[in-house]
Amino acid sequence: MTNWHLGVDLGASTYKCGLISPEWKIVARNEAPTRALDGAAQAADRIAEHVRALISQLPNDAQISCIGICSPGPLDHKTGMIVDPPNLTGWRNVPFAQMLSERVGLPVSLEHDAKAAALGEFHFGAGRGATSMALIIVGTGIGAAMLVDGKLYRGAHDAAGEVGHITVDLDGPICTCGSQGCVEAYAGGPAIVNAYNYSTRRGVESAEAIVRAANDGDEIAQRVFRRAGRALGAAIATLAMLNDIDTFVLFGSVVKAGELLLAPARDAVPHYSHKSISSRVKIVVGELGNDAGILGAAWEEK
Amino acid sequence: MTNWHLGVDLGASTYKCGLISPEWKIVARNEAPTRALDGAAQAADRIAEHVRALISQLPNDAQISCIGICSPGPLDHKTGMIVDPPNLTGWRNVPFAQMLSERVGLPVSLEHDAKAAALGEFHFGAGRGATSMALIIVGTGIGAAMLVDGKLYRGAHDAAGEVGHITVDLDGPICTCGSQGCVEAYAGGPAIVNAYNYSTRRGVESAEAIVRAANDGDEIAQRVFRRAGRALGAAIATLAMLNDIDTFVLFGSVVKAGELLLAPARDAVPHYSHKSISSRVKIVVGELGNDAGILGAAWEEK
Repeated sequence: MTNWHLGVDLGASTYKCGLISPEWKIVARNEAPTRALDGAAQAADRIAEHVRALISQLPNDAQISCIGICSPGPLDHKTGMIVDPPNLTGWRNVPFAQMLSERVGLPVSLEHDAKAAALGEFHFGAGRGATSMALIIVGTGIGAAMLVDGKLYRGAHDAAGEVGHITVDLDGPICTCGSQGCVEAYAGGPAIVNAYNYSTRRGVESAEAIVRAANDGDEIAQRVFRRAGRALGAAIATLAMLNDIDTFVLFGSVVKAGELLLAPARDAVPHYSHKSISSRVKIVVGELGNDAGILGAAWEEK
Repeated sequence: MTNWHLGVDLGASTYKCGLISPEWKIVARNEAPTRALDGAAQAADRIAEHVRALISQLPNDAQISCIGICSPGPLDHKTGMIVDPPNLTGWRNVPFAQMLSERVGLPVSLEHDAKAAALGEFHFGAGRGATSMALIIVGTGIGAAMLVDGKLYRGAHDAAGEVGHITVDLDGPICTCGSQGCVEAYAGGPAIVNAYNYSTRRGVESAEAIVRAANDGDEIAQRVFRRAGRALGAAIATLAMLNDIDTFVLFGSVVKAGELLLAPARDAVPHYSHKSISSRVKIVVGELGNDAGILGAAWEEK
């Protein structure tokens, strides 16, 4: 018998399932809208159907011992419970791993989406060969998952990785979370939009539009990204200094700004950390896109 | 047979040895000047003599399976090598664990002093009952050791815990390390002295003198400690957010300032972190003094 794997990336708008060969290639996949508002039981029914469709494609000598699913947090990895995610409205204390397990007749493990993506990029993507890695998602919010010696760092309450709200400026902007000088208040999508609109007195609605403006030579847009990148780089320096992490994989909508954001971030790292540490720091962009979550959800930590 | 323990805290000026009962009480101790300039071999000779003197006090049915020693870093815990500590002049790549082991005829393990103190406070002192803890030494420098689920967090190169040089202010003071806005540039002993002397145009030489001035009503001295405490509190908030740590044990000469430093640090934590996290944060002062290092050095992590 050969051991195959199956991963599901359950997102706010769609879920994506992948059948994974023993060599960790996604050889078959399907996806569909999550329709979170229809409730968790209906979603579990539909995901189970898609999972069974993939299992039916297994070769004769193949077996799957466990299905991995990742979803937005907060969730409880140990019990497989989705707690109350802002992005899955109405899913409150849902034992989703158990619900899916009952429907497909296999054990199911549940993981945070950022942690699953980090496992995926670490083993199969931009983090290959690293000893320690943080995946930083820079989108509407900024979050992270950290791996040290190839293992997820979870913290005392499985709540580690709130990098978006570490303080990089004691007297910086008040954040949407209520605290002050958070890196998210500089480099999160809404912060970038807000800084640009304040300065230009416009009403631009997305960070993507400001990326286009910057690429067209808009100096205010360029300056907003320099400011965002500097703060992000200082946060990366903090992770490197505090947690001895050397590889940083960036992910998320704001990262599409590319060098507008990455260049000032890279410049900031040696400014805000020791040379012995900053010389080890590598900042790269995620390689796997959505596959990171599918592969990482299916990965079982020893 | 009963299992006893023996720990040695090797400091820049003195070393302290303790014989530890199966109940983890230090029942006998001795200490002597380190005399680092005489070289590591001579120090190993003298420490071995003190260790043997303690071993000779063991009851008949007692045994010791390993001796633990802690020293200033940088050092290599795995190989037992002291690398090149600024506080042990001339000790460059010294295989100190092996040297001591040859002299006493028992295995010897070597640990960073901050990590040993953290283990001591976690198991026997101010961190008892915590699930996750950081010991933060606030003295000339600021360093930390972190425990998560009762285990030391080491990082990829055993270099985790450089909390003194995380950035709390993008445009803050240039630190002695060359980077900018480090918490040490606000709350380290020399930063406190420097801030006070600049403002008062005096030449005070120690943070202790500024503590006395603050307690005598000197408003500049009080303000310097408020500024230091705020930065320290922001750094603690960062550790809580990023690493999901809830118990903070403070240690070191600047902590003798007491509430002058601790009150603004405690006030800063909810200002610079989420309520769900700051409500769990407990900031306390170390209880064990030098015994933390002796007990922690002797503690063997499973």
